[in-house]
Amino acid sequence: MNESAQKPLKVAILSNEAEQIADAIRAKAALLPDTFQYIDIGIATASSEDIDCDNTEVLLADPNLAARVIPRCQHLKWCQSTWAGNAPLLNLEKTDYELTGLKGVFGELMREYVFAYLLQFARNIPAFAANQNAEPPVWRAETRFPLNGLTLGIIGLGNIGRALIPVAHSFGMKVVGVSRSAKPVEGADAMYMPSQITQFAENVDHVVNLMPDTSHTQQLLSKVFFAHLKPHSILINAGRGSAIDDDALINALDESRLAHAVLDVFDLEPLPATHPFWHHPKITVTAHTAAESQPEDVAQVFLDNAERYLNHQPLRYKLDFTKGY
Amino acid sequence: MNESAQKPLKVAILSNEAEQIADAIRAKAALLPDTFQYIDIGIATASSEDIDCDNTEVLLADPNLAARVIPRCQHLKWCQSTWAGNAPLLNLEKTDYELTGLKGVFGELMREYVFAYLLQFARNIPAFAANQNAEPPVWRAETRFPLNGLTLGIIGLGNIGRALIPVAHSFGMKVVGVSRSAKPVEGADAMYMPSQITQFAENVDHVVNLMPDTSHTQQLLSKVFFAHLKPHSILINAGRGSAIDDDALINALDESRLAHAVLDVFDLEPLPATHPFWHHPKITVTAHTAAESQPEDVAQVFLDNAERYLNHQPLRYKLDFTKGY
Repeated sequence: MNESAQKPLKVAILSNEAEQIADAIRAKAALLPDTFQYIDIGIATASSEDIDCDNTEVLLADPNLAARVIPRCQHLKWCQSTWAGNAPLLNLEKTDYELTGLKGVFGELMREYVFAYLLQFARNIPAFAANQNAEPPVWRAETRFPLNGLTLGIIGLGNIGRALIPVAHSFGMKVVGVSRSAKPVEGADAMYMPSQITQFAENVDHVVNLMPDTSHTQQLLSKVFFAHLKPHSILINAGRGSAIDDDALINALDESRLAHAVLDVFDLEPLPATHPFWHHPKITVTAHTAAESQPEDVAQVFLDNAERYLNHQPLRYKLDFTKGY
Repeated sequence: MNESAQKPLKVAILSNEAEQIADAIRAKAALLPDTFQYIDIGIATASSEDIDCDNTEVLLADPNLAARVIPRCQHLKWCQSTWAGNAPLLNLEKTDYELTGLKGVFGELMREYVFAYLLQFARNIPAFAANQNAEPPVWRAETRFPLNGLTLGIIGLGNIGRALIPVAHSFGMKVVGVSRSAKPVEGADAMYMPSQITQFAENVDHVVNLMPDTSHTQQLLSKVFFAHLKPHSILINAGRGSAIDDDALINALDESRLAHAVLDVFDLEPLPATHPFWHHPKITVTAHTAAESQPEDVAQVFLDNAERYLNHQPLRYKLDFTKGY
């Protein structure tokens, strides 16, 4: 690269986490000054009114906020979104710029979420914690339920679901899956179609649902599904809330058809304070955070693409306005 | 195998967990009736007085209890120990039988312990749990600290330590290690000698100690070691209690030189109720259970070896009376 010829890349950040993203970009850029000295954060704001549309060529933005300014940004060349889903921008009339999504980080986050909770139960961390908090504290070997040798069932084997497979294998678990086509997936010993969900249930120890919201998955996890699980099963739902029949899940937990449910997604979010999931002793609730990207992830994807942009290389995770994804 | 010629394999179980081990053997044997119909559990007891020494050919036993009966077992052919360490039997005069240890399961258990606690902090499970328990419950994205991209430092890279490496890699972590020789280990990016412990500390995000109790490791984890850690570091000690300078650890945690310590082993066990570790908010105590074998593990190793015994094949995990291990 010819240094003297290099123009700075001026970026406007428009996000509810604008300051954190800007800090993360500065921190990462400082580690590679030769590459990133050209990056100039013109503004970092959560308010679309602060954006100087006429002078914005590169935008790093939450798509719901960006949708308010992009129609007026005549000179916009590239918008890096902070989200995976980009419907607010894909649905706009304006398409004469490059739109890139946030990808590549969700599988890495999801595998930590899923195994954090599977291992919490495998190692019975709550019982050891209760022993430590007792007065006097209790030194006792609580029962553990090793993952080694068990079978993990994954419903939905896209990029995120497949990211769980090598981790499951590293813990000595087998993997079986459910997908619409039931086509073979590398590393999965068996694949089932949604219509074979009870057969799948009989052949797994623990279950993770990662299916998006489609007509095939509405209440796929129903009374009959829970009836075929093993009593030691842990169910993790990080796909869509609509996949679960809420009442059937509570009944199944009360009848010990499965051991515990870890839920990150719900029909209505935030989960209303009066919803029985919050107070059920066999349910863990998290706040749709299983694979939520963090400012560091956004910064990393932006900087990778910024380097490509500066070098006139094709951007990664580019979205297609015609296809709509 | 000629069925009509097959003699039953009569085993006496002598263990503090005799009943649980017997149940686990029956449960596993029921899954493979063709192979294991010949196994006959003659007795399952925790009392050495119950053993009919003259008629015992195969013993499955805790070595401290077995040491009381084996000198009188004239016809003993094989003893499967329930422990990894077998000094009580290796030190006896009687050596005219096959002694097999419990191996192969410790790495599989340890990797679940280590990553259960690393992921608990990575996903900030306690903060999400506190939100769920609040009244009204709180829907909030708590800060997480992904393992992906971090470096795990492992002190002690024997069989157990090496079992952590593929798991660390599956989470996108790098591994560096400490061993006496600092010889290269597959999958570890760098190896340090105990004398280079501060250099090692500077190059890791989280640390696991698995070193046995040797003169090289006494208080290896000292004030100077903690001073070189990163403030976000988690320290897990599942090696020996003597590796840690207890007062220095508490001071380092109070001064935020590291984030948290998870301790499974102590100078004195059970850890006395008055020890400050129990009540420190940045210390998690477990009861020397990180890689404690469970009755299912004992049953599995016994049945694997029983099949070999029935088929006159060499037994696994055989101990050498001359070498003493």
